[in-house]
Amino acid sequence: MPLIRAWLDSANRPDGGFPLNNLPLGVFTANGAPRCGVAIGDQILDATGLEQAGLLELNATLVLDHPGWNKLMGLGPKAWAALRAQLTALLREGAPAQDRVAPFLHPIDGAQMHMPFTVAEFTDFYASRHHATNVGTMFRGAENALPPNWLHIPIGYNGRASSVVVSGTPVRRPWGQVKGPDDAQPRFAPSARFDLELELGAIVGQPSDGPVTVADADQMIFGYVLLNDWSARDIQAWEYQPLGPFQSKATATSVSPWIVMSAALAPFRTPTREVPLLPHLQERGPMLYDIALHVDLTPQDGQPVTIARTNYREMYYSSAQQLAHHTTSGCPMRVGDLLGSGTISGPTKDSRGSLLELSWGGKEPLQTGGITRSFLEDGDTITLHGGAQGDGYRIGFGTCAGTLLPALPDPYAR
Amino acid sequence: MPLIRAWLDSANRPDGGFPLNNLPLGVFTANGAPRCGVAIGDQILDATGLEQAGLLELNATLVLDHPGWNKLMGLGPKAWAALRAQLTALLREGAPAQDRVAPFLHPIDGAQMHMPFTVAEFTDFYASRHHATNVGTMFRGAENALPPNWLHIPIGYNGRASSVVVSGTPVRRPWGQVKGPDDAQPRFAPSARFDLELELGAIVGQPSDGPVTVADADQMIFGYVLLNDWSARDIQAWEYQPLGPFQSKATATSVSPWIVMSAALAPFRTPTREVPLLPHLQERGPMLYDIALHVDLTPQDGQPVTIARTNYREMYYSSAQQLAHHTTSGCPMRVGDLLGSGTISGPTKDSRGSLLELSWGGKEPLQTGGITRSFLEDGDTITLHGGAQGDGYRIGFGTCAGTLLPALPDPYAR
Repeated sequence: MPLIRAWLDSANRPDGGFPLNNLPLGVFTANGAPRCGVAIGDQILDATGLEQAGLLELNATLVLDHPGWNKLMGLGPKAWAALRAQLTALLREGAPAQDRVAPFLHPIDGAQMHMPFTVAEFTDFYASRHHATNVGTMFRGAENALPPNWLHIPIGYNGRASSVVVSGTPVRRPWGQVKGPDDAQPRFAPSARFDLELELGAIVGQPSDGPVTVADADQMIFGYVLLNDWSARDIQAWEYQPLGPFQSKATATSVSPWIVMSAALAPFRTPTREVPLLPHLQERGPMLYDIALHVDLTPQDGQPVTIARTNYREMYYSSAQQLAHHTTSGCPMRVGDLLGSGTISGPTKDSRGSLLELSWGGKEPLQTGGITRSFLEDGDTITLHGGAQGDGYRIGFGTCAGTLLPALPDPYAR
Repeated sequence: MPLIRAWLDSANRPDGGFPLNNLPLGVFTANGAPRCGVAIGDQILDATGLEQAGLLELNATLVLDHPGWNKLMGLGPKAWAALRAQLTALLREGAPAQDRVAPFLHPIDGAQMHMPFTVAEFTDFYASRHHATNVGTMFRGAENALPPNWLHIPIGYNGRASSVVVSGTPVRRPWGQVKGPDDAQPRFAPSARFDLELELGAIVGQPSDGPVTVADADQMIFGYVLLNDWSARDIQAWEYQPLGPFQSKATATSVSPWIVMSAALAPFRTPTREVPLLPHLQERGPMLYDIALHVDLTPQDGQPVTIARTNYREMYYSSAQQLAHHTTSGCPMRVGDLLGSGTISGPTKDSRGSLLELSWGGKEPLQTGGITRSFLEDGDTITLHGGAQGDGYRIGFGTCAGTLLPALPDPYAR
């Protein structure tokens, strides 16, 4: 699919990220209360205002009257397609409505972005073979790196929806109970091994009330965001047996402010399956996407340094497979459920999506671009970038950024 | 504290469970739409109707206009106390309002009960030392039974709020991926080791946005329900390494329809700590409760057989400690969060709160009252009972029941 030209010049730039082919959805404040917006070029189109003015018609009653896209998701794929079709008609080069639409544009620069949807529940997966092998080797040795179930089901765990924040929200270094291998007793201390995880988040846009196939699951996914699942590795190492990560993952999970709809990513589908799966997890078509990703670390008062480059096509399980697996037990899924892909690591050393891997558990500190890091330092800003490269255009995700603030004094000191 | 006598005779029966000392909160349908109700004797008091009629005043605007108690919870402990004080004044023996209140009573028999609150997020813990030792011995051997962290932090994992259902809702035997020790490959099959877990659920009634102390956590807990965390042991055994239980716990979790407020349980507090904890988890007073519990199994077309009797005071960690631990990382807690205590097992064989333990993983099938069970059979109904025995009265929880329906045909067969 070629570039769909818009009457906004900034939307036609080949590397801009927000062409008419993309139309990602966010919630913004330009002036007044937060409202639904669509990124186009260097502008945000006020979709709430457009709907109120009668220029968008998504349903018999207003859909965008709340600052979040859950209500549109709940209307289903026909409404999703209608939104894209109507926005395309309004913004297309030569569109007759140009003069009526133009007043609803606001510069992205200067707008404040909010959570683009209400997270119903958050599930995080562990679906990159490279990541699972790296982490497993460090935690359990090379021989037991990949758990026996790993090649047969997408391993995941339930996370904490209340801790999901939008890009730009600072993250406070947490305290927690830790016990080093040489410690006689555990102690309560600020996490000394605080880490990022480069992930993609899939947003469930339709509910289910029983097992769904991979094909149906694929249709239920409304769109994707960049996701940083901040992780306290020292807390995790002490707590995770036998019931999995808990407080180590509950400080915050950051997401990018723009939901890139599945429809915008359709031209970038790509298969990667290596080993056949049981029927309930088999894909009938390619369900991963070719999305180039990179992570920048910006030290306090410093310049950004790219610490990892990878691609979402490196994943072993797609979000559709993860969602299908999530429903096998009859688990009801709801509009607004967020599924983290799991850390996206590639095969090479510089394509690892966490400092845990990049510094090999701190044993081989990462040295690049003038910085040395085992884990994150106070004041570090982590920024995730992602996009799919089309022919003369790019489907950009915007960025997902967060700055690590120093730990507060002991919250339990008397 | 002695019995507070009500003008309803049925509320003054020593073993009735719903005296004026209790006042548990539910959502019911007698005729018309679901509304908030309070159990008293053998009646439900229509609290929504009382408030609309001006006989209850909880806030400047209506609080009980939605069928769920979350809005009252959000108002905080003063409003919780005001509700109890006003209900007590209305229902007390000799209360002048008796004639005006009586029309708002409906028999419990025949009323349909609904979820008493909206579950924000669901967390399940693992806080009975006996249960953890039993399960650990079966899964990892006696020497590694209790994980090294177990005596230092309340181990928990995030569950799935969407799967929480009210007592009476049937539960469908799930399918899932399983692999027996002798299987060369995993297979997709109905769970053959479907189990119950006897638990108490604590309901978070006030939000937090940073670490809270155990004392503050205790004040945030609005009340308690009985909770059955249905568990597919064969799915769990295959999936739980390394990130914990996932689909094995996502079919359903049943809760009793009445929230017993913390205030009603205050006379039954009891301490049990054995080993000192780090300061952030230390209790300043007794925070467990003396609540007698038992589990009945009723085979299809059969009579109830009591398969376990235990007490909540057997727990190693209180809900307040679990909630405090839940916040250590900064994890935001929200009104309506539900914390499962973990399976409540006592020291004796007949006080184990799951069939996994009662049948020792199926190796020693439970034989009692004419039934033989390793795990649940289709048509079995599990009913949890619980109550705290006072002087001349009982704080009852009502029951938490669910019937296991047979698995559906393979949902992925083509």
